[in-house]
Amino acid sequence: MLLETIRQANDIKKVEQKDYGELAREIRDFLIHKISVTGGHLGSNLGAVELTMALHLALTFPEDKIIWDVGHQSYTHKILTGRQEGFDGLRQFHGMSGFPKRKESACDVFDTGHSSTSISAGLGLVWARDIKGEKNTVVSVIGDGSLTGGMAYEALNNAAKLETNYIIILNDNNMSISENVGGVSKYLNNIRTADRYLDLKEGIYNALRGTPRGDSLVNRIRRAKSSFKQLVIPGMLFEDMGITYLGPVDGHDIEGLVQVIQEAKRVKGAVMIHAITQKGKGFAPAERHPARFHGAEPFDVETGLPSKPRTEASYTDVFSTVMCKLGGRDERIIAITAAMPDGTGLKRFHNMYPDRFFDVGIAEEHAVTFAAGLAAGGLKPIVAVYSSFLQRAYDQILHDVCLQNLPVVFAIDRAGLVGSDGETHQGIFDYTYLSGIPNMHICAPKNKWELSDMLKFALSLEAPVAVRYPRGTAYAGLKEYRAPVELGKAEWIYREWEIALFAVGSMVKTAVAVREALKEKGYSVSLINARFVKPIDEEAVREACAEHRLIVTMEENVACGGYGEKVLSFLNRNGFRNLYLNISIPDAYVEHGNVELLKKEIGIDADSVVERIQQTLVP
Amino acid sequence: MLLETIRQANDIKKVEQKDYGELAREIRDFLIHKISVTGGHLGSNLGAVELTMALHLALTFPEDKIIWDVGHQSYTHKILTGRQEGFDGLRQFHGMSGFPKRKESACDVFDTGHSSTSISAGLGLVWARDIKGEKNTVVSVIGDGSLTGGMAYEALNNAAKLETNYIIILNDNNMSISENVGGVSKYLNNIRTADRYLDLKEGIYNALRGTPRGDSLVNRIRRAKSSFKQLVIPGMLFEDMGITYLGPVDGHDIEGLVQVIQEAKRVKGAVMIHAITQKGKGFAPAERHPARFHGAEPFDVETGLPSKPRTEASYTDVFSTVMCKLGGRDERIIAITAAMPDGTGLKRFHNMYPDRFFDVGIAEEHAVTFAAGLAAGGLKPIVAVYSSFLQRAYDQILHDVCLQNLPVVFAIDRAGLVGSDGETHQGIFDYTYLSGIPNMHICAPKNKWELSDMLKFALSLEAPVAVRYPRGTAYAGLKEYRAPVELGKAEWIYREWEIALFAVGSMVKTAVAVREALKEKGYSVSLINARFVKPIDEEAVREACAEHRLIVTMEENVACGGYGEKVLSFLNRNGFRNLYLNISIPDAYVEHGNVELLKKEIGIDADSVVERIQQTLVP
Repeated sequence: MLLETIRQANDIKKVEQKDYGELAREIRDFLIHKISVTGGHLGSNLGAVELTMALHLALTFPEDKIIWDVGHQSYTHKILTGRQEGFDGLRQFHGMSGFPKRKESACDVFDTGHSSTSISAGLGLVWARDIKGEKNTVVSVIGDGSLTGGMAYEALNNAAKLETNYIIILNDNNMSISENVGGVSKYLNNIRTADRYLDLKEGIYNALRGTPRGDSLVNRIRRAKSSFKQLVIPGMLFEDMGITYLGPVDGHDIEGLVQVIQEAKRVKGAVMIHAITQKGKGFAPAERHPARFHGAEPFDVETGLPSKPRTEASYTDVFSTVMCKLGGRDERIIAITAAMPDGTGLKRFHNMYPDRFFDVGIAEEHAVTFAAGLAAGGLKPIVAVYSSFLQRAYDQILHDVCLQNLPVVFAIDRAGLVGSDGETHQGIFDYTYLSGIPNMHICAPKNKWELSDMLKFALSLEAPVAVRYPRGTAYAGLKEYRAPVELGKAEWIYREWEIALFAVGSMVKTAVAVREALKEKGYSVSLINARFVKPIDEEAVREACAEHRLIVTMEENVACGGYGEKVLSFLNRNGFRNLYLNISIPDAYVEHGNVELLKKEIGIDADSVVERIQQTLVP
Repeated sequence: MLLETIRQANDIKKVEQKDYGELAREIRDFLIHKISVTGGHLGSNLGAVELTMALHLALTFPEDKIIWDVGHQSYTHKILTGRQEGFDGLRQFHGMSGFPKRKESACDVFDTGHSSTSISAGLGLVWARDIKGEKNTVVSVIGDGSLTGGMAYEALNNAAKLETNYIIILNDNNMSISENVGGVSKYLNNIRTADRYLDLKEGIYNALRGTPRGDSLVNRIRRAKSSFKQLVIPGMLFEDMGITYLGPVDGHDIEGLVQVIQEAKRVKGAVMIHAITQKGKGFAPAERHPARFHGAEPFDVETGLPSKPRTEASYTDVFSTVMCKLGGRDERIIAITAAMPDGTGLKRFHNMYPDRFFDVGIAEEHAVTFAAGLAAGGLKPIVAVYSSFLQRAYDQILHDVCLQNLPVVFAIDRAGLVGSDGETHQGIFDYTYLSGIPNMHICAPKNKWELSDMLKFALSLEAPVAVRYPRGTAYAGLKEYRAPVELGKAEWIYREWEIALFAVGSMVKTAVAVREALKEKGYSVSLINARFVKPIDEEAVREACAEHRLIVTMEENVACGGYGEKVLSFLNRNGFRNLYLNISIPDAYVEHGNVELLKKEIGIDADSVVERIQQTLVP
């Protein structure tokens, strides 16, 4: 096993050139088997094996720096920097992260997780190097999907003025997480298929070399426009921006890649290497189903099928179904995703109503303001997006949607703790950043039926509404409680006295368990499904204050600016002197791991809540 | 006066073609004289007179739609749509806004204020039009500065797939607010100066038409690269993205512009008209000093000099001076601005330390992650930015700076109420969105000396810090109170009993007045300069609780997630039962107008605070 000789950074340089192919095979095999057990990002990692090997052959670590855009493709980098053992605990609680982490290795120079940050960070490291008078090579590896994100372009625009070396590797698999979109994608595709213009190119050059067929050639050049441009020099779009372009090159040819990286190191300025790779390369199921193996659950290596097929519907499934139904009833409903048609469940809507579905690429900012434009034009856009990615569009929500009070619905998936993706992906800030925005309405369903009801409500409101739900299986309890959803109205589930639990969204399920435990201990406990984080149901809080000694709020969000602080402010403003306890996520990033373990760790699981309630009652 | 015949939309069409020049002159004269009294965005409006006239000649309103990027150049549009009278109250309380407002006119179809949103919004209106089967023309007018913002590029990328008409007008004055930066700017400049390649173009074409000088020409083409490309077709960068390009055209030639707009309307798809304009056109002082006349204070029309020269230092001036001093002491200090070297006061730092100054264009997202990269590389970056524009970089602060606990300092100017720019520019959300982020530290100075002390403290902390200060004159009171700035420590100014005023930043000055008024009424009042919004000084609050009946917090931010809610949560967690009053900005957008009037309107001026305190004490 060659892989056994790779114990730390730079060990790969001892591998003989003839063995590169074998090492690549071993790495692929290792990745497939490890990820089949733990789950993880398979496709992107299989696509980047040779590229990563070439970088480790051409560079020296930790002196040289690689910034991995998004970072889920950094597994081979982890293998080659002494972290093979970590793969048994990959993405598990207290185990190795699925993303680059500075705290994990000196060879990880910048934490990533969200898209399109790597060129900005890379430029920072380049200027820091130059200002400090150091010498090393800085490389940003960015996918063609990430290149649809605006901040990548902002950074490219700033890379133009560099006069020292900086390497950008465009890892182009003609895919973001799903099919790539837009003008730049089309442009890259033209470069990829540039071969077919070679004949034309030769023809023109031959003509220029002496034949007198000038006139027809001029016409031909004029007609050919972009194809002509590309035969003169592919990658002109980047050259136009002041960035030297090398490519396209085969992203699975290790020697070729090493050579072009060495060449790129000699460029004084920003240089882009355009490497063509295949997502899922070397594992047939992943080559065939790139979306499914983007972030894979544990699977059977032989068949590629999930080890534990899902049997219960997720909130995403419910959203998917409801959207298809609603789309049939109202032709003004438009669905928008930022490169997540599968993840958000909009794929079926796309199939049914292709003219009313938009995948805008990894471009949350555009997605939100585009939705604002659609709403200003009289339509009913729904932006389906993960909580942590919607952070990108905070200003657009505030400035373009809510300022004009436009009826845009935000279907916020993966809200609350997401588990194995960890710190960068936890959706624990949305109540905070959305609550501060005037005109915004925020609600969260207690169970699968309520998600459906809330989406219908949201579409009827004629104002901005966020509907927020977590990753994973939809709660199917409390089916019998289905009071109509009314603006700013909570739902009383159990009405007793002494302790009132106001729980939001996913925490209603926890509150049911908390209540049972407290009942066993002899307490009398009411349970209120808060439903709305903004506006809160002041009447329900008022009633609860009259009948209960202790008011408890429970939310899967940080405390600051969340539901609980709104309730507490209301209590204070109105002179209520009841005991009050805020259950929420502490002010710290939450690492990766099983969600139940994480909840225990941060004190929002049922046991912890019961304990804190008892402490509050008997201080 | 031709202008008197323009009473409502489309009236311009009755003006004879021979009189277009005269009307343009009258509009310029009108703008110069009105803005000289009220203040406002002069340069950009003088540059867009002919462009706007041409749009109103070629289109019909309100059927056709214009989205003005940023929107401060829409004054001529306001004149041509029946709002001449509004200019006497321009940007004043309850007067006409300096930006497009849907509530102001049916001819304003989308509110703007921040940069780079117009193409996203335009695409939304285009798709809404098509889905509803309507026929009208949608035009987005975007400056070359706004084109450096990433979301404009995200939108261009999505415009590529359009198969129906959509017009983008690139209003290119080779300026954003100050000098434009980056690769795209260089590229546009190449197009602008394309004339000088015309000889080469003719030479090549002649050669192709029959002479046998092929070889040397091939070499010449190869060397020329981008210049050659441009002579084949200017605007290829946009064509590469799938957008038809028309231009460059003279942005002050009305007939020429009308003709090209008519031509553009025939294109099935997205089409960009590249119009070259001059900022400040027709007013010599504005042509000479574009930055000063970007957002002008009232001025003397003869001389161009400010009517009321500023005598007292602003917080921006203090920041400017301190940065120059600190820059000399520590070579690791780097200053970053997003197209605001003048507005943020960094121009002098730029002159003194050009190698450690970066203007990244209107690209707040890149600015912040670039700073994170610099910090990861061992430097001390300071990002100087307006509060409302930093909203654009919320995710980058959370995901790139704070997650890695990188020592980036945010110098947040124009925080709190900004006055005449209104809703889109009020900096009243930053405590909220920053407070929710783990590892972030937030402080605000009470006066000019404290800003200096806080900046020094921030640079010493080795963690993310935001220092937040308002627009306008720096408070020069309380000079004798200058206890050293310590992390999370408040400063006791007056220590008495009964009422404790905890005031943050700009509200310390207000609190001084509140205290005096309350003292006159016979109350005993302590005043604490909070200094830190995160973390709050728990010890100071604890001490205050022991000695005062009423705790009041005062901040120039919305209540949600602000300083007050943090204090209230602390009181609750620790069982303090003192009366508590939260003074902050209500949950609504705040319109434009004089800051003192606005404070009264929303109840955070001294009189209102005194009244609310009395109500709280005697309910």
